[in-house]
Amino acid sequence: MNILITGGAGFVGQRVAMECLSRGHLELDGNRSADIDNIILTDNAEPPFWHEGLREEAKVTVTHGDISDESYVKSLFEKEVHVIFHLASIVSGHGEQDFDLAMRVNLDGARYLFEAIRAQANNARVVFASSVAAFGGDQMPDIVNDNSKQTPGTTYGVTKAIGELLVNDYSRKGFFDGRSARLPTVIVRPGKPNLAASSFVSGLFREPLNGEPCVIPVDPSQLMPVLGYRSIVDGIIKLAEIPADTIGSDRAVGLPAFNVTVQELMDALKSAAGNRHLGDHVMKKDATIAAICAGWPKKADTGRAQALGLPMESSLEEIVTQYIDDYLEDA
Amino acid sequence: MNILITGGAGFVGQRVAMECLSRGHLELDGNRSADIDNIILTDNAEPPFWHEGLREEAKVTVTHGDISDESYVKSLFEKEVHVIFHLASIVSGHGEQDFDLAMRVNLDGARYLFEAIRAQANNARVVFASSVAAFGGDQMPDIVNDNSKQTPGTTYGVTKAIGELLVNDYSRKGFFDGRSARLPTVIVRPGKPNLAASSFVSGLFREPLNGEPCVIPVDPSQLMPVLGYRSIVDGIIKLAEIPADTIGSDRAVGLPAFNVTVQELMDALKSAAGNRHLGDHVMKKDATIAAICAGWPKKADTGRAQALGLPMESSLEEIVTQYIDDYLEDA
Repeated sequence: MNILITGGAGFVGQRVAMECLSRGHLELDGNRSADIDNIILTDNAEPPFWHEGLREEAKVTVTHGDISDESYVKSLFEKEVHVIFHLASIVSGHGEQDFDLAMRVNLDGARYLFEAIRAQANNARVVFASSVAAFGGDQMPDIVNDNSKQTPGTTYGVTKAIGELLVNDYSRKGFFDGRSARLPTVIVRPGKPNLAASSFVSGLFREPLNGEPCVIPVDPSQLMPVLGYRSIVDGIIKLAEIPADTIGSDRAVGLPAFNVTVQELMDALKSAAGNRHLGDHVMKKDATIAAICAGWPKKADTGRAQALGLPMESSLEEIVTQYIDDYLEDA
Repeated sequence: MNILITGGAGFVGQRVAMECLSRGHLELDGNRSADIDNIILTDNAEPPFWHEGLREEAKVTVTHGDISDESYVKSLFEKEVHVIFHLASIVSGHGEQDFDLAMRVNLDGARYLFEAIRAQANNARVVFASSVAAFGGDQMPDIVNDNSKQTPGTTYGVTKAIGELLVNDYSRKGFFDGRSARLPTVIVRPGKPNLAASSFVSGLFREPLNGEPCVIPVDPSQLMPVLGYRSIVDGIIKLAEIPADTIGSDRAVGLPAFNVTVQELMDALKSAAGNRHLGDHVMKKDATIAAICAGWPKKADTGRAQALGLPMESSLEEIVTQYIDDYLEDA
């Protein structure tokens, strides 16, 4: 079985690849154990860092190109691909700065990819990474669930909502067997801040653990759904594995999430860090970021995901401890 | 003020043009009376019929071209356009037969049009014709409203749901001032059947009034939201006229509708027809059409539209009587 991961050099993409390699196979539909032969990681550029050893794995191929270049996308399917994790995306803040780029990469790119998968005519398994940013608008309920209307307040969210619609229709038509994983904010991303409006939510753990200050651009009372990266990765893979008929006609599933305030996140860091020296949280509101975050769901009811067996950590502290284990050299 | 109507040679397009000509101006935002100078009707081909005199109106220009041809779409904006009614569409049954055509015309075409409008940088008023077919799926509520999740069961519906998302985002970004009119099934369309799965809903009035039989391809107990063409046209124009801030961030409004069974529609025909001779209703189920119709909303709660002042007829019989007045020569 061959796996393709777009955005494969990104943090989540690399971890999905590592987890697949570690397992060696996927349990498709709960009973078809399919050995993994090759994993293609495609991305538009070299990442800030590679997880140790991943780049050198015999089963791993890394290729660089632009997902909004149709001929490049087609070239990814010279060898048959059986499972596709479509994670490549312009992120929220970047999409607000550059509407045309977000439409080109997130919408045109997804369509080129979906058409290339369809052209294989092998009913490939597809997991598309959507986002809670697909919700929004002045009629958004206090607690969103998988059946809440999607009227996103960012171009990024619009492209995610459209992606979910396309995944549903391509699946209904039998062009591929798709699922959308609607991601809450992922914590804790290692490395550097990015252009996601939620970037600070990882920064508020990462920078203080590195002894550096982190600017908090929103009110500490801001609520947001978050999930640890291990559960994000396991959930994405689980969505690829479970049978289509357990999901229903709407293939988009919001991953489990902790509905917490930014203050609770900061408190969890202090609680999990023990007697490590921590850099400071510097409260300094950024109107643009605060407005984007305020337009996202405050709470997500993710009972459907949990009923489908998608995992979540037991506590925020557990996520921080995992991050310390995985990414801090002196851990 | 110049008006552009895509799908302008279609039944609704012609009637929107006729109503605009009859009024002579639009009442934008309730206080800016804007005289109508020109109306451009664009469509991909000559229609089965032109309403009498419309083609010859001095203010009317008819142009033929393919909305999925980007250069053609751009050419429609050589003269500045102030109000756009985007009605052109591959219809439901046709979209199920030809996925690629539906995506090309309904999605690519809409995007070319929206970009051409944006390029004018004049905050033009846009009304996009969506459809109750934007709802669907196995989680659809018994009664949909403007805040119900859109998980359409047809490719046509998917392109309409995407169109609504794009109209919202182009409006949020200030690229134009858009609104989506979510249309129930329009009755009574004159002329010939088309490839819409709902085509029979007009046929069940039209053919018997012409003394011809009409095949009813669904169960008489099938519920569907319907509205008369005069209210459809007035509602579309009203949506162009009302101020954006009365609508909110979700610019998509379901037009008022009668939630009725096919049996009630047939009964209304008999009630309104008086002692006219009527052709027969021939009950003969078509599995494909029945499945599409069964996947659409059974009932629509259109209280928001009514609060915004969008009209509806007082009864089904009134709609039939209007059709007889407007389209039957011996009326």
